[in-house]
Amino acid sequence: MLDIFERIKENPGPLGQFADYGEGYFIFPRLEGPIGPRMQFQGREVIFWSANDYLGLCNHPEVIEADAKAAAEYGMFYPMGARAMSGETDQHLQLERELADFVKKESAYLLNFGYQGMVSTIDALVSRNDVIVYDMDSHACIVDGVRLHSGKRFTYKHNDMASLEKNLQRATKVAEETGGGILVITEGVFGMRGQQGKIKEICNLKSKYQFRLLVDDAHGFGTLGETGAGVGEEQDCNDQIDVYFSTFAKSMAGFGAFLAGDKEIIRYLKFNLRSQIFAKSLTMPMVIGGLKRLELLRSKPEIKAKLWENVYKLQNGLKERGFNIGDTNTCVTPVMMQGTPVEATLLVKDLRENYGIFTSVVVYPVIPKGMILLRLIPTASHTDAEINETLAAFEAIHDKLVSGYYKEQEQKLLQEQGLSFKPI
Amino acid sequence: MLDIFERIKENPGPLGQFADYGEGYFIFPRLEGPIGPRMQFQGREVIFWSANDYLGLCNHPEVIEADAKAAAEYGMFYPMGARAMSGETDQHLQLERELADFVKKESAYLLNFGYQGMVSTIDALVSRNDVIVYDMDSHACIVDGVRLHSGKRFTYKHNDMASLEKNLQRATKVAEETGGGILVITEGVFGMRGQQGKIKEICNLKSKYQFRLLVDDAHGFGTLGETGAGVGEEQDCNDQIDVYFSTFAKSMAGFGAFLAGDKEIIRYLKFNLRSQIFAKSLTMPMVIGGLKRLELLRSKPEIKAKLWENVYKLQNGLKERGFNIGDTNTCVTPVMMQGTPVEATLLVKDLRENYGIFTSVVVYPVIPKGMILLRLIPTASHTDAEINETLAAFEAIHDKLVSGYYKEQEQKLLQEQGLSFKPI
Repeated sequence: MLDIFERIKENPGPLGQFADYGEGYFIFPRLEGPIGPRMQFQGREVIFWSANDYLGLCNHPEVIEADAKAAAEYGMFYPMGARAMSGETDQHLQLERELADFVKKESAYLLNFGYQGMVSTIDALVSRNDVIVYDMDSHACIVDGVRLHSGKRFTYKHNDMASLEKNLQRATKVAEETGGGILVITEGVFGMRGQQGKIKEICNLKSKYQFRLLVDDAHGFGTLGETGAGVGEEQDCNDQIDVYFSTFAKSMAGFGAFLAGDKEIIRYLKFNLRSQIFAKSLTMPMVIGGLKRLELLRSKPEIKAKLWENVYKLQNGLKERGFNIGDTNTCVTPVMMQGTPVEATLLVKDLRENYGIFTSVVVYPVIPKGMILLRLIPTASHTDAEINETLAAFEAIHDKLVSGYYKEQEQKLLQEQGLSFKPI
Repeated sequence: MLDIFERIKENPGPLGQFADYGEGYFIFPRLEGPIGPRMQFQGREVIFWSANDYLGLCNHPEVIEADAKAAAEYGMFYPMGARAMSGETDQHLQLERELADFVKKESAYLLNFGYQGMVSTIDALVSRNDVIVYDMDSHACIVDGVRLHSGKRFTYKHNDMASLEKNLQRATKVAEETGGGILVITEGVFGMRGQQGKIKEICNLKSKYQFRLLVDDAHGFGTLGETGAGVGEEQDCNDQIDVYFSTFAKSMAGFGAFLAGDKEIIRYLKFNLRSQIFAKSLTMPMVIGGLKRLELLRSKPEIKAKLWENVYKLQNGLKERGFNIGDTNTCVTPVMMQGTPVEATLLVKDLRENYGIFTSVVVYPVIPKGMILLRLIPTASHTDAEINETLAAFEAIHDKLVSGYYKEQEQKLLQEQGLSFKPI
């Protein structure tokens, strides 16, 4: 046997191995100054493309005022304990009614945090005889929820309807044996590469297979559909989404999350979500602040229009310059390039320090080997000047990348400093 | 096969079956008015014993001011995304340093929410060859974390050192075969009945068995030990607790949580906790508000002294009146009586409506059949008058209970209204 701390010291994990090289810069960077599309990073101003605050509500004066007023009245502790124990208020119920109305569902339930809310939702919906079928690119919170399931689970290839059907057939076979049911889980928008989940096509399969559908619409809520009601409205299949989930950490510029669906099912979930029954209710300032954000979502369609204007400017500008932005059909804007992880870090450093552009960067193993993915999240607050400056910077660093500029730096760095990384 | 929604509609779950009878009253009650030891419930003032806000900081003027000021400066969204992506600030790092210092550990790491933080901590500490040994009365967040473990796990009888040793022997055997290690998990204070975990005795077993110890000290942080550093300080075995966890939802009168331990281990956890890497950082107002709360914890020992004065008054008063408060050795004050679940609801209703006392109530299956547990959480804010009024009320309702008053009501109710509950 061994001491588990010894193993930890020997194997720092997939991200941990880069800690000494990247901490505070590539991972755990500190952005400073007032929140918005321009922030401070290591003493210089950068155009910031990683806020996830699609509608730019994070620093909207009415939002800040609502948050501040609620915090002054209630502090951060109110309402006291778990929702079931002492954490229910009229304002929680009001926000639930308004959210249900906004996403065109009978009922909604607030969650104290999105990650654990999703984990418990999956856990509460299935019993051991049920089968889960889910998209293999699903977010970590879905993966962890599925990991709690003691019955069968199948993944299908990302957004691949043939693969989904094959797995629905396998699942049906299992469910017929166990006497259980089938839960399909996917996302409204895949946050890394920006494709919408093929929700309508999945819903159409309900005529052939018996299953219920749970959709995580973190990036779709507030950005997709005519009114911003999300992916179900966008793809005209809202009624077929059995349980709708969204975080408040994107368009709602906050934290916490909610579920929506038929009254009876949401009520069941209210009484059965372990992370909600056994942990503190969503804090009041976020509930009151949430009401204000939702009011702005509903009453100011021009904000979403401005967001999409910016999305098109950025994405068209990238495409015109020959960049590969994959098959995004949402605001999420990935820019794919070819290069090693070390080239990626040199490029990102150059982009931040010499061009003042801050984006997040993803490399293997999140995406295939040899690929660099820079992810841009446009918001309604970004200006034309910021978009144009970013496009010019991307052109410049891409030229450097293909000319071998970063490759040369990489070789120098590796020789001079003797740096090396274990393959992961 | 079946439709999972049909099953849900047929079986509303252990709490859900009482929904029509109890919602809004026994479960999901709405407490109103300013937070504190007296609040409004259904139009009347009640003395409120379920806040978990041990030190009474929730409405401390300096705390509210800090929360409000931070919300006015930053809003509820700041800092933007996941800690690793864009959610790290100087204030987060400062609160971590101060927390580490306070609990006398090398290093600390903030968690965006306690429940998922604990789940991911367990998940990150063990690999499939490891064995988990944990107290069978552990909180749901520990249970869910253990459920993610794909290797062996053993429970031991609550606080029973002979049972722990037996299971450590079994675990050692398994670990010797798999080449894995052992993680023991328990709580500093068991929140339902108020016993301290036998942490020192567990630590002493380290001389006989090789394992690491993770302690959830939700109710101990701020209340136990000379300086309030928690159960390790109280039992003089702080150095032997390998990973220390506490929520901010009790003494810190907020939400979120933290881990503390050796620098290298905490750094590993910082890079490997899935619910932190893939979800939003703890909101800035709670971080700045947390610094203020911690300052009060350190600079005003008279608050903790007042808490314990109240604890003794309440617990001694109950004992003097012949109440069974079990073997609590913490602030958590359980009052155990004999009766059916329906008697429990009638008693609690009487207590709320005719005596103005609001406590939470626990029945089977959380505790053995035939037992009623009323749980009181005294705080530093409760006054002598509130304690005395509560003691008198408890005496009165207990007299009614033993005289058969509630039993009679129960029979009338069941006959008149034809109410019945499925055994759970």
